Amino acid sequence: MVHRLIVSYDGRPFAGWQRQPAAPTVQGAVEAALSDLLDEDTVVYGAGRTDAGVHAFGQAAHLFLRRPFPAKGLVHGANHRLCPEIRLLAAHRMPEGFHARKCALGKRYVYRIHRGHVVPPTSTPFVHGVGQPLDLGAMERALRHLPGEHDFSAFALAGGSHGQPRRRLFSARLSEHGREVRLTFYGQGFLRGMVRALAGTLIEVGRGSRPADDLRRLLQPGHERCDAGVTAPAQGLCLEAVFYPPAWRPLEGYAG
Amino acid sequence: MVHRLIVSYDGRPFAGWQRQPAAPTVQGAVEAALSDLLDEDTVVYGAGRTDAGVHAFGQAAHLFLRRPFPAKGLVHGANHRLCPEIRLLAAHRMPEGFHARKCALGKRYVYRIHRGHVVPPTSTPFVHGVGQPLDLGAMERALRHLPGEHDFSAFALAGGSHGQPRRRLFSARLSEHGREVRLTFYGQGFLRGMVRALAGTLIEVGRGSRPADDLRRLLQPGHERCDAGVTAPAQGLCLEAVFYPPAWRPLEGYAG
Repeated sequence: MVHRLIVSYDGRPFAGWQRQPAAPTVQGAVEAALSDLLDEDTVVYGAGRTDAGVHAFGQAAHLFLRRPFPAKGLVHGANHRLCPEIRLLAAHRMPEGFHARKCALGKRYVYRIHRGHVVPPTSTPFVHGVGQPLDLGAMERALRHLPGEHDFSAFALAGGSHGQPRRRLFSARLSEHGREVRLTFYGQGFLRGMVRALAGTLIEVGRGSRPADDLRRLLQPGHERCDAGVTAPAQGLCLEAVFYPPAWRPLEGYAG
Repeated sequence: MVHRLIVSYDGRPFAGWQRQPAAPTVQGAVEAALSDLLDEDTVVYGAGRTDAGVHAFGQAAHLFLRRPFPAKGLVHGANHRLCPEIRLLAAHRMPEGFHARKCALGKRYVYRIHRGHVVPPTSTPFVHGVGQPLDLGAMERALRHLPGEHDFSAFALAGGSHGQPRRRLFSARLSEHGREVRLTFYGQGFLRGMVRALAGTLIEVGRGSRPADDLRRLLQPGHERCDAGVTAPAQGLCLEAVFYPPAWRPLEGYAG
């Protein structure tokens, strides 16, 4: 039986999602908790490999269960064994063949920027403070170049793309929340480091050190990572949600 | 010279705003930082005394300076000496006679409730998890009784009201943010524990264990604290902002 989990985490203490032999990771912690709960070695497969320090509100993952286990027990049993920075929000039994990464229709990432010189402690863990005003109009003009299928080589760290640098972004939006600015990217897939490279480049546009039109130029083939802006810090990034086609409807489950 | 400070804090590590001899408080920490920076004993006077564990986005306070000190230096110099859970967001020189509490026109408090059985770690520090669905329609009907001047004795802890239990609420609203519900109270003044008592009572209405009309009854004189609902936990409460009449316009200053 295959189950889908929704996993939420404060990324600060972790070296990212993916299991590593000698560093605390979210996958490692979830697998340890479930292995203890189910009393057998358990592997979870995430929809996206978030980098060190990146947060998630709704990461998705799947796992196989050898024998039936109630979804509610899975959620609360795992949470009872997890550190407070990680929580399973839901577990659902899925039709056979479900795969958290391969079946995903898209993902939504949010990058949070605070414009103040001082970031309020109630936001600190989840925003990147730039400490200066940003030209939001210029940033919005730059964002308009992003939707569609493009070669995102200028926004990709080495590795992970397997030589296929084309990705489709469904939408890229900016919203203002007091002194905070949120960049929301909804796309079919993302290259490694892509959202943070986009955020860093957009911040340069907002600061006036890069023209808004540059984004269009950078999406033409033939560019390299060094042509775009710096990678924005991990703490501002959150994987908000992973979307699946309606055909992958859960059979049963529990949302906490 | 009198200056107004805007202070933001994550209330978790503190025994509230008000200075205490043997417990960490926000006022104590801000005074210690400013005393060190200014090299003389400095007292700050807060607009509101938030309880242990209550957060603030925009607490206001005033202090007197014997000699001129640049507002920007005040903000960054204090922040440099403060723990990360407290940040001065702004400092402004005010006209003589300004008093953070006495001149305030009103305050806005927000109480954040999460309905899930599991609270996402990205919200945990700042919400109260009730772990069950709430009837938001009933809560909204109950909220309608609150605006206006009433006797809030049923919602006040002993002490602090000096026998004057009447307070004026300008507005009381509910908004939905996914599985989170926010109660926003904007009022001229609040009795001790009043927002948390209102939130606790409204949660009972949402759970169906108290009729929405009960709020109207409880605002009639002659009620005691035990007639209303339980006090909702401190971690869900945040002092969002303190408002002043336009006449108290800052003379100069710095916002970080």
